[in-house]
Amino acid sequence: MTRPPLLIESPQNPQFKLWESALDGRGLKKNGKFLLAGLKTVPEALRQRPDRFERLLFTDPAQIAGWPLPAGVEPVQLAPALFRALDVSGTGFPLLVGNVPRFPMIDLSQPPQGLELLCALGDPSNLGALLRSAAAFGASRVVLLEGAAHPFHPKCLRAASNAQFSLTLLRGPRWAEVNAAAGPLYALDGGGTDLTRFDWPTDLRLILGEEGQGVPADCPAVRLSVPTTGNVESLNATVAVSVALFARFAALR
Amino acid sequence: MTRPPLLIESPQNPQFKLWESALDGRGLKKNGKFLLAGLKTVPEALRQRPDRFERLLFTDPAQIAGWPLPAGVEPVQLAPALFRALDVSGTGFPLLVGNVPRFPMIDLSQPPQGLELLCALGDPSNLGALLRSAAAFGASRVVLLEGAAHPFHPKCLRAASNAQFSLTLLRGPRWAEVNAAAGPLYALDGGGTDLTRFDWPTDLRLILGEEGQGVPADCPAVRLSVPTTGNVESLNATVAVSVALFARFAALR
Repeated sequence: MTRPPLLIESPQNPQFKLWESALDGRGLKKNGKFLLAGLKTVPEALRQRPDRFERLLFTDPAQIAGWPLPAGVEPVQLAPALFRALDVSGTGFPLLVGNVPRFPMIDLSQPPQGLELLCALGDPSNLGALLRSAAAFGASRVVLLEGAAHPFHPKCLRAASNAQFSLTLLRGPRWAEVNAAAGPLYALDGGGTDLTRFDWPTDLRLILGEEGQGVPADCPAVRLSVPTTGNVESLNATVAVSVALFARFAALR
Repeated sequence: MTRPPLLIESPQNPQFKLWESALDGRGLKKNGKFLLAGLKTVPEALRQRPDRFERLLFTDPAQIAGWPLPAGVEPVQLAPALFRALDVSGTGFPLLVGNVPRFPMIDLSQPPQGLELLCALGDPSNLGALLRSAAAFGASRVVLLEGAAHPFHPKCLRAASNAQFSLTLLRGPRWAEVNAAAGPLYALDGGGTDLTRFDWPTDLRLILGEEGQGVPADCPAVRLSVPTTGNVESLNATVAVSVALFARFAALR
């Protein structure tokens, strides 16, 4: 590392306050900065997606000695208390600051392109786990309906394992407007068609309900179900979607 | 409801204190009582497993008016503050008190019976999600290795959706002794054999690592992997196991 790093020690520092705003959805929307944490995800993202980041935050220069820093990523040393305030998962490992990308608004009157997931998961950890499975099993686009958590919330980033950087994320409308979306439309439901006997189309929209609520009854989507023993009344929502995505991925290979 | 319910108003009441001990693993072990919460799970468990419960707790008798109460389940009215202290998920819905069953110690020198899951998940929510998938996809027995969360912890019950009542739960030894277990032994690993091309034996032990750590390198289990796009470095652990259990369940049907 040849550049001497900037040192920030005051909680009143405007840059620190900007990064602090990345810890909740409101600040993410207002200021457009996000914080990536994680012993595996930070080095991976820095290697694979250097253009997404602008700062590398740490407390001790020894932590990043020998790291190949891309030209656009400036190292910044923080006083330990400031660093801990940003390191909400307690990784004790350098953090990356990135710019939240724009999420274009989808036009649902147009047909789907590949497998599109439509969801309004309000819990950032649940949304993150879903994004991880979506990236792992080849969903092309994820549409965040009104009420969905922010996909760059620290908890969502933590659960997603860098899935945000390989997915196309789009904004969607409210539930009421989903009913008029161009199909084919599908939704998961315990009473639907067994998805292991289903011939997956190339392009489709798969709609996920809110946590604990499912898809509205008036939604015109065809219902698909994951076959089970029947020993539990339902699957965990993230597990059900992940299994569905896997079944399609395995069937199309 | 013909029996007038007992009313408890003091936090010093010995029965209340007993139920309060069900909120953590130590109290669960010491006193052997557990608390089941949930708008769907409580009525379902009362209908399907009445023999597992001894008390139904509520704050207002109107909440349980018309409930068919089995003979062995005594209704108990609690002062609102006491009820809230036990209703840690904030359901505002009657709670069931049950007796924690005995978990026999497994003899791993004996061959497996059906699909046995061996795990040491220390987070009760993660363990609960795993139990739910195990019950849904036909794992016959779940072996809780040393360090696993208590399967009747409130968070585990909440995540498992009554899976505890249909599974055979056993206690297991420490990691070091798992290496000597009778096989066939399998473990999930990103670099293993593609499990969609795997011929599942009827009887096997599937070993799950601890959160974020995986299975110890010296564990002699054959590694299986869930095929993915490669766009994320790994799957969420619960998702990976659930997909594996589903793949086996679907293949054997």
